[in-house]
Amino acid sequence: MNKLTIVKAENLKAKPDSDHLGFGQYFTDHMLVMDYTEGKGWHDPSIVPYGPIALDPSAMVFHYGQEVFEGMKAYKTAEGQFSLFRPDMNLKRLNISCERMSIPQVDPELLLDGITQLVSLDKDWIPEGEDTSLYIRPFIIATEPCLGVRAAKQYKLLVILSPVGSYYPEGIHPVSIFVEDEYVRAVRGGTGMAKTSGNYASGIRAQEIAKLEGFSQVLWLDGVEKKYIEEVGSMNVFFKIGGEVITPELSGSILAGVTRDSVMTLLRSWGIQVIERKISVAELFEAAREGKLEEAFGTGTAAVISPIGTMKWGEEQIAVAGGQTGEISKKLYDSITGIQKGVLEDPFGWRNIIV
Amino acid sequence: MNKLTIVKAENLKAKPDSDHLGFGQYFTDHMLVMDYTEGKGWHDPSIVPYGPIALDPSAMVFHYGQEVFEGMKAYKTAEGQFSLFRPDMNLKRLNISCERMSIPQVDPELLLDGITQLVSLDKDWIPEGEDTSLYIRPFIIATEPCLGVRAAKQYKLLVILSPVGSYYPEGIHPVSIFVEDEYVRAVRGGTGMAKTSGNYASGIRAQEIAKLEGFSQVLWLDGVEKKYIEEVGSMNVFFKIGGEVITPELSGSILAGVTRDSVMTLLRSWGIQVIERKISVAELFEAAREGKLEEAFGTGTAAVISPIGTMKWGEEQIAVAGGQTGEISKKLYDSITGIQKGVLEDPFGWRNIIV
Repeated sequence: MNKLTIVKAENLKAKPDSDHLGFGQYFTDHMLVMDYTEGKGWHDPSIVPYGPIALDPSAMVFHYGQEVFEGMKAYKTAEGQFSLFRPDMNLKRLNISCERMSIPQVDPELLLDGITQLVSLDKDWIPEGEDTSLYIRPFIIATEPCLGVRAAKQYKLLVILSPVGSYYPEGIHPVSIFVEDEYVRAVRGGTGMAKTSGNYASGIRAQEIAKLEGFSQVLWLDGVEKKYIEEVGSMNVFFKIGGEVITPELSGSILAGVTRDSVMTLLRSWGIQVIERKISVAELFEAAREGKLEEAFGTGTAAVISPIGTMKWGEEQIAVAGGQTGEISKKLYDSITGIQKGVLEDPFGWRNIIV
Repeated sequence: MNKLTIVKAENLKAKPDSDHLGFGQYFTDHMLVMDYTEGKGWHDPSIVPYGPIALDPSAMVFHYGQEVFEGMKAYKTAEGQFSLFRPDMNLKRLNISCERMSIPQVDPELLLDGITQLVSLDKDWIPEGEDTSLYIRPFIIATEPCLGVRAAKQYKLLVILSPVGSYYPEGIHPVSIFVEDEYVRAVRGGTGMAKTSGNYASGIRAQEIAKLEGFSQVLWLDGVEKKYIEEVGSMNVFFKIGGEVITPELSGSILAGVTRDSVMTLLRSWGIQVIERKISVAELFEAAREGKLEEAFGTGTAAVISPIGTMKWGEEQIAVAGGQTGEISKKLYDSITGIQKGVLEDPFGWRNIIV
């Protein structure tokens, strides 16, 4: 990777109203781009004005889906600095995803430097309101113009930035979940542990059906036995049962979430036992019936903590924490966003000050 | 869908040497494009000069992989006419894929009319050599610029054309196959029955490993038990065992191939029994050990018939039909390509003369 070049936008865009950002609808003035050519490696990293990319219609990403992506966030801290949250974890995972999808890996330090320069250049786009941040989306697509089914020989990496509000229009309020037992998101031996577009494409149909029936998200079961809980929507999932917290173990079909890791670390630092193991939907509903299911929540970069208020499995519907945001869910949300925004101490060194 | 407009290319490209076409490396002078906007439906179909498409970097196809595609071929017949092969089957399947991927369906008659006009305009690109044809690739991508995980509200349909030779550099010679028991292509409840990019992306890693070990393709097993045979590479698969022909039943994770259907119809018309059922890799290797495995071959639009010469499962390697192209494999290849090229009678009405 040679030296980063910067071409600044001549006209800056008007910034959106920070009270109505939504998620991933607005994009900043610049983006980072870098190309890969077989034999040459990754080359010509540059920051350029945000704008359309031109691809041959036979570019392999359009046909065989070789793609990986990441999601991270930048924050303006209480002291007026700008920070990223655990970017090393995301860049490490990007390369794990690359390996699974046969995409050439990227030097994480050089990419982090590029992202840092990009965010610094567009720092006026980092919103300051509650629950807001600057979402960072690095992604790599196969660009070689060829219809043979094989790994491509040309790729393009891009990093785009989007000022965002809450992922869910409801904010941190509890969501309703539908246990999906027909459609499957991923299976052991598949691509579930990689952050790649196909995993999300496969989930859209089930999500649409759940929405039509009045639910916010689906709870995914494993693809083999359709018994064990994997993820909720595009998040990892946690359950507090009888005082201890359980999250599905990383089986190969579950994404190793950065927020998942942060949640486990925080809970353990508070003296709460966290167990990574298989948990069946039957066990979960049994615990609910016995009054032992105290809280349930999804975790992810976009939503941070998303409390689950109700869950429906077949004909049975249960309320969790009385349909309210549970105590642990709230404390985790406040702690993580507090560390991110520099309002709280950062005991684990997660805050990465960039400007 | 309103009236098709045509903008002809001002400069026509030089045509490639028809002896060295490869697969999907050259593209013709024009392409068909059509856009979808929520509330407006599919609109503005047009044939335009072949060239790059410009998309916002946040176009949803780059992130969440909402995409479907098809593969069909056009041929120059012995009488100098131009024909398609069973295009109705491909367009029906395109809409089945659309449904699974939450992409708005397309009027098959209007799309066929557009494809016919496109192929007619670029008919000088249809190669005439043995094993050559004009490959037709319709595909639909989600173009809405947004990072929310949901079905997009804007799409683009394109049809591009590529003069092709044999899919495999070996031509119709037998290939060597590796039985894949770690990676999984698709699972029941997933997207295996849809022709969507994610299914192909998930297979690339296993295919690369197989190539490194000297094999042409992998034989995919089911994602649940990793016992039953599903597909070979990106083709359906058939086995002739003890005089009868067996192909895996359409379980939900297997693509309903047009060539698969044509092969079953031809075999039955020749008085050969064809059974669609589950077949385990253990049963297959047992039959091979007993000398009952007479032939094995993949079927698909790209390769038509791809005989399997050897198969390796764990430490055991077997030769099929003495490593040669079997009698039925050869007869099927000659029959299908003969019907396609108008050299043979067309008893089932598969040839669709367009010009």
